[in-house]
Amino acid sequence: MKAGEMLYEGKAKQLFLTEDPNVVRVKYKDSATAFNGEKRATLEGKGELNNRISTIFFQYLKDNGIRNHFIEPISPLEQLVRKVEIISLEVVVRNIVAGTLCKRIGLSEGTALPRPVVEFYYKDDALGDPLVNRDHISALNLATPDQVAQMREIALKVNELLKKLLAELQIILVDFKLEFGLDGEGKLLLADEISPDTCRFWDAGTGEKLDKDRFRRDLGQVVEAYQDILNRLGGKKHV
Amino acid sequence: MKAGEMLYEGKAKQLFLTEDPNVVRVKYKDSATAFNGEKRATLEGKGELNNRISTIFFQYLKDNGIRNHFIEPISPLEQLVRKVEIISLEVVVRNIVAGTLCKRIGLSEGTALPRPVVEFYYKDDALGDPLVNRDHISALNLATPDQVAQMREIALKVNELLKKLLAELQIILVDFKLEFGLDGEGKLLLADEISPDTCRFWDAGTGEKLDKDRFRRDLGQVVEAYQDILNRLGGKKHV
Repeated sequence: MKAGEMLYEGKAKQLFLTEDPNVVRVKYKDSATAFNGEKRATLEGKGELNNRISTIFFQYLKDNGIRNHFIEPISPLEQLVRKVEIISLEVVVRNIVAGTLCKRIGLSEGTALPRPVVEFYYKDDALGDPLVNRDHISALNLATPDQVAQMREIALKVNELLKKLLAELQIILVDFKLEFGLDGEGKLLLADEISPDTCRFWDAGTGEKLDKDRFRRDLGQVVEAYQDILNRLGGKKHV
Repeated sequence: MKAGEMLYEGKAKQLFLTEDPNVVRVKYKDSATAFNGEKRATLEGKGELNNRISTIFFQYLKDNGIRNHFIEPISPLEQLVRKVEIISLEVVVRNIVAGTLCKRIGLSEGTALPRPVVEFYYKDDALGDPLVNRDHISALNLATPDQVAQMREIALKVNELLKKLLAELQIILVDFKLEFGLDGEGKLLLADEISPDTCRFWDAGTGEKLDKDRFRRDLGQVVEAYQDILNRLGGKKHV
């Protein structure tokens, strides 16, 4: 494969090769999907907003000692990142009960958790991204016990950093999903994106949802909510 | 409450108070249920077989250093056990892929696991007994981290002991479910039952199922399979 060729197309992003074998170009799409791809739409402007928001979060995390794949944005829809092999796990951190956790443990949306809850989901659309534990991860050879422990530790650090940043902007970090990858040297690196597609953000004053739940639940004003997040983060719409 | 009064009635057993406040009488029922109680039947003789089989397993485990609630059988359907407060978790150990694990991790029934998989399920019929991890357990205050670690360790020891015993009888221990309780002093104690209702047993020669899957899947000869397990364990039908 040559520079410019598409390496991978996901639900919300495309990945392209660059001249540097260690670097890939990520292009954010305007497509929105939910419920394991069953619900789909095009939301004009979402790609740019997520590219901008993810840029700000990854730069902030890097500045605070969290190694990650982010290099730099290169256009309104695109950023350069280090090439990694993505581990087939979604690492979710939760501060407040919402989404699938309500059904799993029987607590109402909005219940504050005494301590953050970390969950690992097996990234497999056909299986519906099931919750897995360390023994499942080991049986499937998805990651080593040491990598699982590292991902958990990094995810909890990211949670503390993001909660702090967002609290100053009157945003409650309800929960979020991270993905990790291994670079060419086999080192674990935080990867993927951090955006209203992958986090739940609630306005601290009103409790209003400022994330993908607006799309999932047909609440309207989806792009406007993403724009609100970017505005509060001090970002501009255009790079 | 007085001696003789029923303390609790579950799907497969009744618990009665005795003169000793630290001891309860368990009476095994002939009822069979599956799929969270959706499928029900009466299987004559099952109660007695499970009382006998559970007696043999608990005595064997006690003889091999696994503290548990079992005291002694007192009639064909009844045994005395130490009174415990049951922890609302099912602890499952798996050696071979079967049941819900097929759907969770996408491996076929019969796939040997490289190492035993331990799972914790939240005992809650309304929620469908969901898989939980240590953070869920902590958030729900179901058990302390130390108790979770102890349950895991005991469950893995029980697995090694039962596998060894059963292998000599040409029975493959596919998986099993344990429950634990806290005694009056707050000590963790293996409890509940160990029987073809709570384990998957396959004949080592033919692969034939000798457990509750015969009922779940309408394979017939359910009680006969349970009797076969008891016979191989050297038990007699009547105490």
